[in-house]
Amino acid sequence: MKLVFTPEEIIAIVQPRTQRGATQQSIRGLSALGPAQTGELSFLGNAKYKAEVASTRASIVLVPAEYEGEPASDQLLLVVDNPSAGIARICARLEQELWPKPAPGIHPSAVIAPTARIAPSATVGPLCVVEDGAQIGERTHLQAQVFIGRNAEIGDDCWLMPGVIVATECVLKERVRLQPGVVVGSDGFGYDFVEGRHQKIPQVGQVIIGADVEIGANSALDRARFSKTLIGEGTKIDNLVQIAHNVIIGRHCILCSQVGIAGSSTLEDYVILGGQAGVGGHVTIRKGAKAGGRAAITAEVSAGSYVNGNPAMPYMLERRLAVLQPKLPELFRRVSGLEAEIDRLKKASAP
Amino acid sequence: MKLVFTPEEIIAIVQPRTQRGATQQSIRGLSALGPAQTGELSFLGNAKYKAEVASTRASIVLVPAEYEGEPASDQLLLVVDNPSAGIARICARLEQELWPKPAPGIHPSAVIAPTARIAPSATVGPLCVVEDGAQIGERTHLQAQVFIGRNAEIGDDCWLMPGVIVATECVLKERVRLQPGVVVGSDGFGYDFVEGRHQKIPQVGQVIIGADVEIGANSALDRARFSKTLIGEGTKIDNLVQIAHNVIIGRHCILCSQVGIAGSSTLEDYVILGGQAGVGGHVTIRKGAKAGGRAAITAEVSAGSYVNGNPAMPYMLERRLAVLQPKLPELFRRVSGLEAEIDRLKKASAP
Amino acid sequence: MKLVFTPEEIIAIVQPRTQRGATQQSIRGLSALGPAQTGELSFLGNAKYKAEVASTRASIVLVPAEYEGEPASDQLLLVVDNPSAGIARICARLEQELWPKPAPGIHPSAVIAPTARIAPSATVGPLCVVEDGAQIGERTHLQAQVFIGRNAEIGDDCWLMPGVIVATECVLKERVRLQPGVVVGSDGFGYDFVEGRHQKIPQVGQVIIGADVEIGANSALDRARFSKTLIGEGTKIDNLVQIAHNVIIGRHCILCSQVGIAGSSTLEDYVILGGQAGVGGHVTIRKGAKAGGRAAITAEVSAGSYVNGNPAMPYMLERRLAVLQPKLPELFRRVSGLEAEIDRLKKASAP
Repeated sequence: MKLVFTPEEIIAIVQPRTQRGATQQSIRGLSALGPAQTGELSFLGNAKYKAEVASTRASIVLVPAEYEGEPASDQLLLVVDNPSAGIARICARLEQELWPKPAPGIHPSAVIAPTARIAPSATVGPLCVVEDGAQIGERTHLQAQVFIGRNAEIGDDCWLMPGVIVATECVLKERVRLQPGVVVGSDGFGYDFVEGRHQKIPQVGQVIIGADVEIGANSALDRARFSKTLIGEGTKIDNLVQIAHNVIIGRHCILCSQVGIAGSSTLEDYVILGGQAGVGGHVTIRKGAKAGGRAAITAEVSAGSYVNGNPAMPYMLERRLAVLQPKLPELFRRVSGLEAEIDRLKKASAP
Repeated sequence: MKLVFTPEEIIAIVQPRTQRGATQQSIRGLSALGPAQTGELSFLGNAKYKAEVASTRASIVLVPAEYEGEPASDQLLLVVDNPSAGIARICARLEQELWPKPAPGIHPSAVIAPTARIAPSATVGPLCVVEDGAQIGERTHLQAQVFIGRNAEIGDDCWLMPGVIVATECVLKERVRLQPGVVVGSDGFGYDFVEGRHQKIPQVGQVIIGADVEIGANSALDRARFSKTLIGEGTKIDNLVQIAHNVIIGRHCILCSQVGIAGSSTLEDYVILGGQAGVGGHVTIRKGAKAGGRAAITAEVSAGSYVNGNPAMPYMLERRLAVLQPKLPELFRRVSGLEAEIDRLKKASAP
Repeated sequence: MKLVFTPEEIIAIVQPRTQRGATQQSIRGLSALGPAQTGELSFLGNAKYKAEVASTRASIVLVPAEYEGEPASDQLLLVVDNPSAGIARICARLEQELWPKPAPGIHPSAVIAPTARIAPSATVGPLCVVEDGAQIGERTHLQAQVFIGRNAEIGDDCWLMPGVIVATECVLKERVRLQPGVVVGSDGFGYDFVEGRHQKIPQVGQVIIGADVEIGANSALDRARFSKTLIGEGTKIDNLVQIAHNVIIGRHCILCSQVGIAGSSTLEDYVILGGQAGVGGHVTIRKGAKAGGRAAITAEVSAGSYVNGNPAMPYMLERRLAVLQPKLPELFRRVSGLEAEIDRLKKASAP
């Protein structure tokens, strides 16, 4: 953050029960207790770091009622019921400052097709393109250089950041947030091999993205072959993730960065996939299942289970194998040793 | 799809031999037999799903001549020689509706350098940039917000979707299709380590993309150090794929999503790489070889072979190892058991 | 390269000590000795390829003083102290031709907010957006369709290629080069799980990118939760790399393509990560450590060490395991053989 808050402004945001000490410093950053510098604000979120409050250089520290230490000179302690909640209030305020609500309206540099329908309360920023028949919902914000294809529907209260592309006929429900560079509705990857050449199978389906979904920078979601690629309500997808055609993702899933999901696979609700995990085609991952980073899933994963490894297996087994792997050279030696012993025993017992 | 077709329009497209039953429903979607809803069209593409025709809720079903069942009420069966081919005709028609041929011409918001040459039949959409000396071929479509760098050449009948970037001096042959966000001609990743710093090696080569190549959303292809990065005719590349400098890819290859190919490697014709596969630098993959998803290839792969795993090995061996891995804990126990037995035998046979 | 140089121009650039032979050809490309064609220039950079000079079809060849061969007909040998350095001079010249220094000024199609500050010597190309309070340094070049968010600071002599996005409050120091499609300052991926839903944790920190950093096409760098994501001076990052929130990367590191680094991890100076490597959250990689391609790092890596594999382990151990893996089927058979032998010995020794 580059914004500056006076101690009085911080007090107004945090509304502490009481305070101890005082500081002349304006606050220019938030930081953990250890690395905090003069002019930064910190907080005691976990009692085990209590000792760090006494040595921190932070100019303001949020502490819970049970913290009894005294401030250093030029340091202000603000006593609050829940320091983490206090930080959250400051972050929320910062968020407003960093991204103030834009004024409704269409920037004169945006290119809006005649039959596009833009809600009066929506904001269409500079150099956006909205094609014919597309709809933009109330209070939705296309920040800049966004592309909305023919007949696409963007719901209310969405935020599409710079460079986002939503292609023809795709649908976003309410409060969807797309980070910069996201592509929704690229063609599915489907070809028939005919006489030595790959002949394109038309990809004429849609992508439908549920309410409260967030998708990370430069991720790509392919349209279905002829039905729908679906992202369920509340699901959160990180950066550089690949969602192939006809994938169905349930509600409130978490897909970490660089995950790839091949065509026609299904994730039920509350599935969590670690970073760089891969899911093969036509696979189902049942409700609440979890996969570790880099897991390679090519067969059904049962509800609530936790898998890891390549190929994915139960987490505890994968951890056990990870421990045994480095002992393989020794195991080979032990087996050679046993073979030598057997030879000796056989010779000794020979008549 | 959000388009609507009447039963009469469907009949006109599919041209069935005969028909049974009738429906009042307009068709608003295509679906497999099982999940199909009223108002959707489905098809019997594989005889083993024959029983599903009787229970499907689809309003129109394409069936082959040998299917003898009767339609439900408000359901129309269209008897055709090849239901899959019938679906393909509907998809092709949908494709035309979704992406109608754009009118030739240059959108007034596009920024075209004075010495760029745009074919009269080409379409340059809103907010595109075409730099000096660049050429755009006949009937080629730059959809929106596309960037074409100095002296780049785009062949005839290409389609570059929103946000595509083709940098200086790169070349696309005929009928190349680039999905949104593709980058062609970023610098190769090359540095000399000199006195504790990485000094950039100029990357002054090109990327040349053959006819009928398609590249998926947000993929990146680096220009060569000083010669050419080449993508052969008819090759298809999925989303988020990385092609490093001086890579040579043959004709009619398939590279699935998130594949990465390091510098100066060669893929001969008809190579297939599964999703998230990686190819190290200066490696050759011979004609028709195939690698499974997540395969890690660091040495030559022979023609026609099928490899898998990390490091890549013959597919059958990798499958065998995948079966043995979970038995490793038991193997360690068996070896410990053998050692105990040997000890006992040695003691027993000691004088 | 598509530029053409006469032999006289090449001589002016390379400034050879002496020359042998002559050519009528203009030079249209650079190539290695083996594949070089008429009209191309090549060089003997390594004495072991000496024999290839005699058979190359290159029209001009740079050779060291100790090379004694004679040119073919229509071939020019240029004798230089260091052929590789000679090629570097030609490449640097080509670089100037391909990307001539742009004239300072703001393209009329760019959208510049009233309070943005653009240095007089900077170039802001077509269809860029610069939001309020942003600063653009001296001689910096925003090529085309670049987005600079509110209060972001771009240092002197930077080059941001087409489609680059630098979000609110992020900072680039001097001479930073961002390849097309890079996203700096997307939100970190952080949620609290509250009553069955993922509630967003505001991400209000910055990304700070040191001097002389280069970042590859379509890579994504997340802003910190509330402090800073840092990329140290001189570090080079390849295409499609993911840097999560609060990651700290030291100086002069190398991150190859498709690497992913999870939240709050630290790389000290001079770390090298091979392609597709992954680093888990809250991990430290010490100074000068190196990881092979596809390495999966989930625990601290000590200074100067070289790791490989999943999970990452010392390189030599990983190589040893890679050799043993294919012998596992045989090991299982050997253990079964031993068990049979023991059984026989036990029976034989039974009274």
